[in-house]
Amino acid sequence: MKVRRESRPVAGFRAVGLHAGIKAKARDLAMIVSDEPASVAAVFTTSTVVGAPVEVSRGRARRGRARGVVVNSGCSNVAMGARGLRDAETMARLAAQAVGCAEDEMLVASTGVIGEPLPLDVLRVGIPRAAEGLSEQGWDDAAEAIRTTDTHRKVASTRLKIGGRFITIQGIAKGSGMIEPNLATMLSFLVTDAPIAPATLRAMLRRVADATYNCLSVDGEGSTSDTVVLLANGAAGGGTLRGEQAARFEAALLAVCEDLVRQLARDGEGATKLLLVEVVGARSAAEAQRAARRVGNSMLVKTAVFGGDPNWGRILQSIGAGRVHWNDETARIRVGGVVVFAQGRSAGPAARRRAEKAHAAEEIKIQVDLGVGSHSARLFTCDLSYEYVRINAEYTT
Amino acid sequence: MKVRRESRPVAGFRAVGLHAGIKAKARDLAMIVSDEPASVAAVFTTSTVVGAPVEVSRGRARRGRARGVVVNSGCSNVAMGARGLRDAETMARLAAQAVGCAEDEMLVASTGVIGEPLPLDVLRVGIPRAAEGLSEQGWDDAAEAIRTTDTHRKVASTRLKIGGRFITIQGIAKGSGMIEPNLATMLSFLVTDAPIAPATLRAMLRRVADATYNCLSVDGEGSTSDTVVLLANGAAGGGTLRGEQAARFEAALLAVCEDLVRQLARDGEGATKLLLVEVVGARSAAEAQRAARRVGNSMLVKTAVFGGDPNWGRILQSIGAGRVHWNDETARIRVGGVVVFAQGRSAGPAARRRAEKAHAAEEIKIQVDLGVGSHSARLFTCDLSYEYVRINAEYTT
Repeated sequence: MKVRRESRPVAGFRAVGLHAGIKAKARDLAMIVSDEPASVAAVFTTSTVVGAPVEVSRGRARRGRARGVVVNSGCSNVAMGARGLRDAETMARLAAQAVGCAEDEMLVASTGVIGEPLPLDVLRVGIPRAAEGLSEQGWDDAAEAIRTTDTHRKVASTRLKIGGRFITIQGIAKGSGMIEPNLATMLSFLVTDAPIAPATLRAMLRRVADATYNCLSVDGEGSTSDTVVLLANGAAGGGTLRGEQAARFEAALLAVCEDLVRQLARDGEGATKLLLVEVVGARSAAEAQRAARRVGNSMLVKTAVFGGDPNWGRILQSIGAGRVHWNDETARIRVGGVVVFAQGRSAGPAARRRAEKAHAAEEIKIQVDLGVGSHSARLFTCDLSYEYVRINAEYTT
Repeated sequence: MKVRRESRPVAGFRAVGLHAGIKAKARDLAMIVSDEPASVAAVFTTSTVVGAPVEVSRGRARRGRARGVVVNSGCSNVAMGARGLRDAETMARLAAQAVGCAEDEMLVASTGVIGEPLPLDVLRVGIPRAAEGLSEQGWDDAAEAIRTTDTHRKVASTRLKIGGRFITIQGIAKGSGMIEPNLATMLSFLVTDAPIAPATLRAMLRRVADATYNCLSVDGEGSTSDTVVLLANGAAGGGTLRGEQAARFEAALLAVCEDLVRQLARDGEGATKLLLVEVVGARSAAEAQRAARRVGNSMLVKTAVFGGDPNWGRILQSIGAGRVHWNDETARIRVGGVVVFAQGRSAGPAARRRAEKAHAAEEIKIQVDLGVGSHSARLFTCDLSYEYVRINAEYTT
């Protein structure tokens, strides 16, 4: 599957990103619209503190059909009570009116400062202007407009032939702390011209999100507003994807989402490296998950990766602290592909030096075989640097 | 209860701390010995990766009677397989021989670099020398000898009259990252001349540890070697403490342990402030605990405290990410004693400024009322500074 980090037009979809005036200067308003009603699937934050836009979009995504989504950065519309809900609905209505669809066919997402009201006056002017600017080429601008502390926009796309027709998948994403409540909600929007029934799309996105977005963590937190929306408008033509064709589409979708997730992890707040934790040999899926999260979210492991230190002791102890079962005779730890711990002890200074050298790469893999079962899990994350502390200590709401 | 951060002699106990030669220069070997067999209670790490000294001491503490403990810093004797167990037993035997007690009356603890063998040659010379140096005044030296990355020794003591006699409680502790697997295991040793039966002592230590050591977290980790040992030799005379007298003793023990825990949190790796998180109004004890840990271990909350930012948004979202139940109308958040969030929204800029000013203190309290129940929990922790990253990124095993 060839995934490119560039945008491609997708039949029957238009996008836009512009500066409406929520932020001082940068692009802050995006829209994605399908010419015809599309199948829609979405996954949202599991937090018990939920942003108003999530509450509005969750209900609308459940209906299975939608025309598009309107997104702003610079204001998250979180912790605003009943007013927040009204404002999110108003924002979606303005977008629906501007593109001429039913109000409940428009989803909405917001990211940015919390505890501040959405500037509806700005949106009343900005949204119609955005609707006028919608274009097949608007993806890069849309990806720009949803950024907050991200250092660059994230786009990924792929194209494949299924059943004689070309199908395109285009995705954008943002998010730099998995939670920086003021700024860094994770948002991702995906569109495809493939014809897929809503129920199929929903099951696919659930599986793909579990294998990608749900394996992403910059700092072990989750935002109130995390949102992934997938729209499929069928403009590529042909029969609805099922069976083998659906499976091939899902593999392509997985590749696009995994690429976006790699971009998000690598651009985590203050990150100098992408850290991929792979756990195998666990007694259960839950223990595999717990081990991957313990290792990947451990401040000690993350600072060791920043320092170029293949510190298997910290890896082992983060697993132990998570009360994960392991076998000290059969367990193995690899850092940067090099076995640094096996048979209950260090693999020695030569292995250590090789693992240190592997830290020159931009992506570090920590692989743990717990040696007690057949379950596995992975986590995409990043190292912990001085810059993370600077960003989060010096930023003031 | 007046707890002093200084050592006091305790009848029938002697202690020592000296430089044996495991470390290049600093004190690295400590012993604590009761003249007569004492009641003993101990709590250990719950990690599934357990150091050899913990395995040895756990069995011996269960017997309820002991004479003392021998402790070294500079080498943790962790991840050394069968050899590690043999070495821990040898170290305890050397100490038992030197003071003339049965081998299984001596407990053992080690902290320092992992994956390296205990230098038994050094201990064969050092332990008899330590036994000769045992003295009623040796507590400060012992507290020095168990340090690793701690920036200063931790001691606390109190004295109270129970049933007509004076009883002393003396404690020492070390630990700077709750886990820095190479260095910073949490160790604490407590002695008292009160007469207390082993079963009573064990129940007391369990309760006190739950309210103090188990509420301590520098970085959300737990070491393979965490150990708290409490010895009570009865040298103060009089009848065994029961009922009201035992309760008064337990309150004093709690005060000593809480003071040690405050010292540990304040001296967390890179810490500039002690952070005390208090959660009330939770639906269950487990949710109260989860909320306190989520807030206190959140890298975003900890960097905000370092930055002097009363960021209720981050506090709220760390609770939400932990899937903790709360009521957005009745929940309240105080930072530094100032209500910054109530009735579902910010308490405004004046409150914010007052809470910012409260950050001038060395101790910051974050108080969260979830507004949905009657359970509570607390966590002693610290802020997250550049220095934490430096210590853990630049240190190499």
